[in-house]
Amino acid sequence: MISVSVIGASGYSGIELLKILVRHPGVRIDKLFANSSAGKHLADVAPIFAKTADRMLESYAVDKILTSDLVFIALPSGEAMNIVPALLSAGKRVIDLGGDFRLQDASLYERYYKRPHTASTHLKQSVYGLPEWNYDQIKTASLIANPGCYPTSAIMPLAPLLKEGIIESEGIAISSLSGVSGAGRSASVDMSFAEVNESVRAYKVGTHQHIPEIRTTLEVLSNTQVKLTFVPHLLPITRGIYTSSYTTLKQHVNEQEILAIYEQYYAAAPFVRYSATVIPDIKNVAFTNFIDIGFRINQEDGQLVVLSTIDNLIKGAAGQAVQNMNIMFGLHETEGLK
Amino acid sequence: MISVSVIGASGYSGIELLKILVRHPGVRIDKLFANSSAGKHLADVAPIFAKTADRMLESYAVDKILTSDLVFIALPSGEAMNIVPALLSAGKRVIDLGGDFRLQDASLYERYYKRPHTASTHLKQSVYGLPEWNYDQIKTASLIANPGCYPTSAIMPLAPLLKEGIIESEGIAISSLSGVSGAGRSASVDMSFAEVNESVRAYKVGTHQHIPEIRTTLEVLSNTQVKLTFVPHLLPITRGIYTSSYTTLKQHVNEQEILAIYEQYYAAAPFVRYSATVIPDIKNVAFTNFIDIGFRINQEDGQLVVLSTIDNLIKGAAGQAVQNMNIMFGLHETEGLK
Amino acid sequence: MISVSVIGASGYSGIELLKILVRHPGVRIDKLFANSSAGKHLADVAPIFAKTADRMLESYAVDKILTSDLVFIALPSGEAMNIVPALLSAGKRVIDLGGDFRLQDASLYERYYKRPHTASTHLKQSVYGLPEWNYDQIKTASLIANPGCYPTSAIMPLAPLLKEGIIESEGIAISSLSGVSGAGRSASVDMSFAEVNESVRAYKVGTHQHIPEIRTTLEVLSNTQVKLTFVPHLLPITRGIYTSSYTTLKQHVNEQEILAIYEQYYAAAPFVRYSATVIPDIKNVAFTNFIDIGFRINQEDGQLVVLSTIDNLIKGAAGQAVQNMNIMFGLHETEGLK
Amino acid sequence: MISVSVIGASGYSGIELLKILVRHPGVRIDKLFANSSAGKHLADVAPIFAKTADRMLESYAVDKILTSDLVFIALPSGEAMNIVPALLSAGKRVIDLGGDFRLQDASLYERYYKRPHTASTHLKQSVYGLPEWNYDQIKTASLIANPGCYPTSAIMPLAPLLKEGIIESEGIAISSLSGVSGAGRSASVDMSFAEVNESVRAYKVGTHQHIPEIRTTLEVLSNTQVKLTFVPHLLPITRGIYTSSYTTLKQHVNEQEILAIYEQYYAAAPFVRYSATVIPDIKNVAFTNFIDIGFRINQEDGQLVVLSTIDNLIKGAAGQAVQNMNIMFGLHETEGLK
Repeated sequence: MISVSVIGASGYSGIELLKILVRHPGVRIDKLFANSSAGKHLADVAPIFAKTADRMLESYAVDKILTSDLVFIALPSGEAMNIVPALLSAGKRVIDLGGDFRLQDASLYERYYKRPHTASTHLKQSVYGLPEWNYDQIKTASLIANPGCYPTSAIMPLAPLLKEGIIESEGIAISSLSGVSGAGRSASVDMSFAEVNESVRAYKVGTHQHIPEIRTTLEVLSNTQVKLTFVPHLLPITRGIYTSSYTTLKQHVNEQEILAIYEQYYAAAPFVRYSATVIPDIKNVAFTNFIDIGFRINQEDGQLVVLSTIDNLIKGAAGQAVQNMNIMFGLHETEGLK
Repeated sequence: MISVSVIGASGYSGIELLKILVRHPGVRIDKLFANSSAGKHLADVAPIFAKTADRMLESYAVDKILTSDLVFIALPSGEAMNIVPALLSAGKRVIDLGGDFRLQDASLYERYYKRPHTASTHLKQSVYGLPEWNYDQIKTASLIANPGCYPTSAIMPLAPLLKEGIIESEGIAISSLSGVSGAGRSASVDMSFAEVNESVRAYKVGTHQHIPEIRTTLEVLSNTQVKLTFVPHLLPITRGIYTSSYTTLKQHVNEQEILAIYEQYYAAAPFVRYSATVIPDIKNVAFTNFIDIGFRINQEDGQLVVLSTIDNLIKGAAGQAVQNMNIMFGLHETEGLK
Repeated sequence: MISVSVIGASGYSGIELLKILVRHPGVRIDKLFANSSAGKHLADVAPIFAKTADRMLESYAVDKILTSDLVFIALPSGEAMNIVPALLSAGKRVIDLGGDFRLQDASLYERYYKRPHTASTHLKQSVYGLPEWNYDQIKTASLIANPGCYPTSAIMPLAPLLKEGIIESEGIAISSLSGVSGAGRSASVDMSFAEVNESVRAYKVGTHQHIPEIRTTLEVLSNTQVKLTFVPHLLPITRGIYTSSYTTLKQHVNEQEILAIYEQYYAAAPFVRYSATVIPDIKNVAFTNFIDIGFRINQEDGQLVVLSTIDNLIKGAAGQAVQNMNIMFGLHETEGLK
Repeated sequence: MISVSVIGASGYSGIELLKILVRHPGVRIDKLFANSSAGKHLADVAPIFAKTADRMLESYAVDKILTSDLVFIALPSGEAMNIVPALLSAGKRVIDLGGDFRLQDASLYERYYKRPHTASTHLKQSVYGLPEWNYDQIKTASLIANPGCYPTSAIMPLAPLLKEGIIESEGIAISSLSGVSGAGRSASVDMSFAEVNESVRAYKVGTHQHIPEIRTTLEVLSNTQVKLTFVPHLLPITRGIYTSSYTTLKQHVNEQEILAIYEQYYAAAPFVRYSATVIPDIKNVAFTNFIDIGFRINQEDGQLVVLSTIDNLIKGAAGQAVQNMNIMFGLHETEGLK
């Protein structure tokens, strides 16, 4: 049994993580930490846990987690970097669901996250937790930077195509649509029902903090310089991401060739589904750890669009974190996730 | 007073058109025609008209509209072409809200609409009813092809940029999101609440009938050959379209230069709003005839994204049809629409 | 032309009121006042007004409204009572959309609104602005207490039945469902999209401030003592109220008798629609000033349910306020509202 | 391992049932039957099963289920009665999720379901599968009539109060709100997204087929004659039922006394949660087999409202069916459901 604690248990990602962990046969939950909700019962902030897995929420201190093998951090970006160094010193393995350790370049972090990085010496220690690409490094990692939701949805379908050199690495357009839970649990007029319902809006156009994560990860995985525009849009749904990536073909390809590329990279990946005929739909991945990939070739104009969907809280956060934990601790990748 | 009749009064576009016409000070409604609902009261199929503007729905015959100056056709594509020739012979002016007369090339129509065109001799007579571009032709037109909803949303922001030559005419990616009312009023599992709610899906990828309308109109208006990929997505909202168009810049431009181009084309257009700072949001155009345009330059990657929103039933259908009517009959363009 | 000012122009009720007023042929808008948004343009807080009716929002002071004939107050309850006395002293007529002047009994106000009433000497001056019942008093009123949204939806169908004595005045159950805009425009986790979407919850059960308004108004109008339970529920829709009122029949009645009662009270009312066959549906009243009433007799169990729907922002707030204004200033009741 | 087959595997209840069964450690799925989808893969009609639990859908014949211990029927009401007799003759145990065997009185069935009952001789053999009330009978039953969704939500909170005689058995008002999945998976304009979204409507007022199920079950469980009005309303959510039941108190009671009654009946029930302080909310029971019960005493008017929520597809259908299966086969009631 892996003994795990969760810091930030009362936000949307934390709650989703707990829903998975309480049913995971290989996990024993050690401590749950929260900030403003410390001292309350979990069921007070998330009544769905009443009569099933209720527990106390504590305020965090590093000496409370000495009995844990693994610590999940599900805090807003900017908070993990103040906690991680002490956890690593204490010999704990850590999975950070936030953005603090995803960019190797601290200056890029500072530009997009608008704050200095206070633990940049630990950046090179962190492993980008995308299991389909970094499986071996994840096995032995002490610090996992769990990928962002948008990056997961965009990197997975694009990286094989870039690596195989069939699409241009410039002029890529990534149009992503996200449910509201991606924005976390907080009070704001902008996220109120009456403002979001029956509406759609792009946001953080050209400034979203996931832009460098998508670009540099694609560059690392494909070993090419990438130029892209990423636009996230907020939708009136609670969960799910739909990403449509528009690319230019370098040469004539047919459906079978594209399928063969995905086959080559993802045939053995238990959470990747791809098809030349099925158009992805958020409802087919909601509440699951799957990513669904579809595509369509526009021969006439020499373009290719790839479509991908994930549940932003599962494959885009808590589910992928558990997938990483399974790999780190020698369990089967799918344990507790199917 | 313009005497107008509506063929197809009980669909979503027809109902929306009637909501505008009953309040229009320059219009007298002559006859309302429907197919399966003929013989019923309008308020039976659209209870919102109870106690305000209830009337009988009749089954259509050309000799019933001799007292009308103008006939709106709000039928599914494929039906207007069987009706229009007789109406024109009878000397009536016609605004067709469907797709039958939007493509000048009948073979393109047959490829995308999957049926032969039975009135192709009338194609050259039709005027594409985009008032901001074809005002003078609309004034004297006998047959208006009212633009499609997606094309309106995409052509308006892109045409000035292409005409001024600041963006590449190849590799354009148009990602559109539409509310469900765009699919019309019909029974299908795919459009049922439980299938659409909490979901998003792309559809008709690479085959949508609006693709040639967008491409050829952009080509005509900008006098350039255009290569583009258009992907429509279905959203869980009732009305509204959000279109994000991704383009490659030919040269370095700044915000002021882009604004100046929109100023040049649309400063006098009463229903076009554009801004370098406000990100369009569907709720700001819902239930109005406005199109809102925003944009963001990605200098680092040499790309430009333009964002646009309309209400698919108003500027994308009924409102634009009334705007065309106003121009045809010498009224102010905004009459009944503000 | 009536010169009107609005205090609280940037909330949902204020914005809805302005949408009506800008199109009202008999109104000239004088001043718009806001609190935190003072100094901004109206279009900054409500972009739908861009290019149509943009104006400056000012901070309120009584000497700024000397040129107004009428002042609408669209502030949260508890604020109007601090403003109204000076307005009345200045000779202005006032329509308050909040709850401060709806209850004649200040102790009832203090019990349900949880604050002392600071202008209780003006309570007897106020007229409850339900036009279908208090038309003559409204004509000459200086201070109108515009009815609450829930009370409008419940009183209209129940009052005739109680007055005619066909239902028991005890054991009435009023189950109301409301869209989120009823809660006003403010930041809270409870009203965030992710919490409201795909959910329903009752709230303020037994403590809602509209309970005494419903009860005492029914008692005044029917001259009977009334016992009732009112439960409001929050729904994932933006606007609209659905009220189902369950009553016990005193005697055997048939549909025609019930219809005849509604006919007697509402045949001449331009905004009341009733039917023995049409079941009310929120979408038929959304964006209108109508109230739709339906009912069903349960002969077997001696019970009667009456169903009613309104748009909470129109007949439940801004529309009814304009209806009152029309009556106060001798215009036709429906001016600007159809 | 229990070998189970499902007849009607491609509807909403069938799919929900399969989601539970594929994860149930004590179950082996034998055959899946469908009508129009026979011959297809399960993943073709429900892509969520791709790469997890895909299987063939067959057309039903009684000789195909000889290897099954238990047969679930998830067909529209009216179809099970043509299948059940042969299944029972073949010695199979059956759980019918439809309404055919819930009413002991065939004439009541014929009045509300509008068709003759073709297997009425089997009615007395059927056990009403409400585990919290009929546990012992369920253990040995050959035919379970799985309760309806609305009845489950209404009977659970009301039965203890009626049995203990603290509320009047006349004048009960049950106001229920349901998500759209309750209507099943079928094509109709009424259930299309554009008609349901942003709306609410009552339906089948006074005629819903669950009325006699609620009334007679309450009468049997409490041994009292009951008079009630039940009104179902359709909401724009996919899943969940909110039921608000309004009753008259026979005598003065306090919160502790009500709580004590629920304690007496449900303290040991693993899927019932009740509270005097927490107001039920659909999102707390969605995707679970829980029923949440809350209440509020209106001392002033002598009334009591009880509020209850379930997931209509789980506790209101598939989850309760599995709960019944567990009891029938000697497993713990919660197996596969937590």
